[in-house]
Amino acid sequence: MKNIVLIGSGNLATQLSLSLLYNGYNIIQVWSQQIKNANKLAEKIHCNATDSLKNLAKADLYIIAVKDDKIESIVKTITVDNIIHTSGGSDIDIFDNRFNNFGVFYPLQTFNKEINIDFENIPICIEANNKEFGLKLNNLAKSLSKSITFLNSKQRKKLHVAAVFACNFSNHMYTNAYNLLKEDNLDFKLLIPLINQTILKLNDNKPGDVQTGPAKRKDVKLIKHQLEMISNKKTKDLYQFITNSIIELNE
Amino acid sequence: MKNIVLIGSGNLATQLSLSLLYNGYNIIQVWSQQIKNANKLAEKIHCNATDSLKNLAKADLYIIAVKDDKIESIVKTITVDNIIHTSGGSDIDIFDNRFNNFGVFYPLQTFNKEINIDFENIPICIEANNKEFGLKLNNLAKSLSKSITFLNSKQRKKLHVAAVFACNFSNHMYTNAYNLLKEDNLDFKLLIPLINQTILKLNDNKPGDVQTGPAKRKDVKLIKHQLEMISNKKTKDLYQFITNSIIELNE
Repeated sequence: MKNIVLIGSGNLATQLSLSLLYNGYNIIQVWSQQIKNANKLAEKIHCNATDSLKNLAKADLYIIAVKDDKIESIVKTITVDNIIHTSGGSDIDIFDNRFNNFGVFYPLQTFNKEINIDFENIPICIEANNKEFGLKLNNLAKSLSKSITFLNSKQRKKLHVAAVFACNFSNHMYTNAYNLLKEDNLDFKLLIPLINQTILKLNDNKPGDVQTGPAKRKDVKLIKHQLEMISNKKTKDLYQFITNSIIELNE
Repeated sequence: MKNIVLIGSGNLATQLSLSLLYNGYNIIQVWSQQIKNANKLAEKIHCNATDSLKNLAKADLYIIAVKDDKIESIVKTITVDNIIHTSGGSDIDIFDNRFNNFGVFYPLQTFNKEINIDFENIPICIEANNKEFGLKLNNLAKSLSKSITFLNSKQRKKLHVAAVFACNFSNHMYTNAYNLLKEDNLDFKLLIPLINQTILKLNDNKPGDVQTGPAKRKDVKLIKHQLEMISNKKTKDLYQFITNSIIELNE
């Protein structure tokens, strides 16, 4: 599976194609709905660009790396031998029997086009419709990363939900901290050492075991006082809701 | 202010005393309500121990490092010249005119007794009742840390609320992720690279600018699907509440 056609040109498509290229694979074509976007990535990785699913090049593997809600219509339009998608949230059953070999190749990470990222430590979660194709995907994954896990669609989607908590929701907590500090012209950077230390503890501990703070201590007086410090109604409600959630979990 | 009496023997008291010792200060006595706890820390830092506030040794500075709700009763019991507390959540006004010099010395970090921590990068927030004492506290802080900020009590308490969001609430998100994965025997360690990358982005970006995920994209279909994946009612409610909070903030 040396010759690859990439369907998609977003953050994940960009970083995955760079990593494949770096590890000796040939990306022979990039497709995007917008030819402008396909051209932009194709220039970066020196290959053909197209916006037509009917003119895809012949390749050993087709990788769909687009938004979840775009996968199905692409799958219905093309017929090829070996095809995978890269989504945590979409089932393997989105492919049907028109394909000989199909699967999922989900790198568990948050990607930006402009921030190049080393795949070596990114967990890659694999699923395939048959054992032989699974082994081929395993080899592909092994050439990019040290961390490979076979997951079925239910497990992968569960992991995706957990990732929303661990990445998106925690980032929303930082956003609320940022906005609170901004009201008093305080620098968010003050919190970075604290955030780093919180993460560092996760290497050797379950997060539940290192929970600290007023909610964990059920320090009702401080909770009440902190709620009074928050002027924005929505932020206050969020503080109250998560505080209750921590207290209930510890009861 | 070379000779210091430490009032408290908890996580912060332990780490602060080690850092002071390492930087040439003398801790001459440790007080704790439980003599057992005072002895334990005193052994570690080679000094006297007491459980009597009436028998405190003579010192240049008294540092109160105890839980917020214990500070006031200690302050009311003792009369000394130079005194500070180390709390983010307590006002400087907790001291009264019986003291010549008083202030707050708040290291913004999460501490454990057993995890030794370098104070060099910990922001220390200072407040004092007069300029001269403020300068003395500044010198003390400078000998421990590169990051010193003068904050009044309102600012410090606001920072403390922000820290609850950034540290305690984000850790609660990790706990929920952990529990979701545990249901399917999946390893929480899979999420560590994702969590690290989320934090790394904060060095160069506002958290609101790097928010990703289904709520940010208002991907209603995926949100509905993910809610169906969560069997625990409380976890489901938390997912829904934070999702709404992200959507509302972006509107």
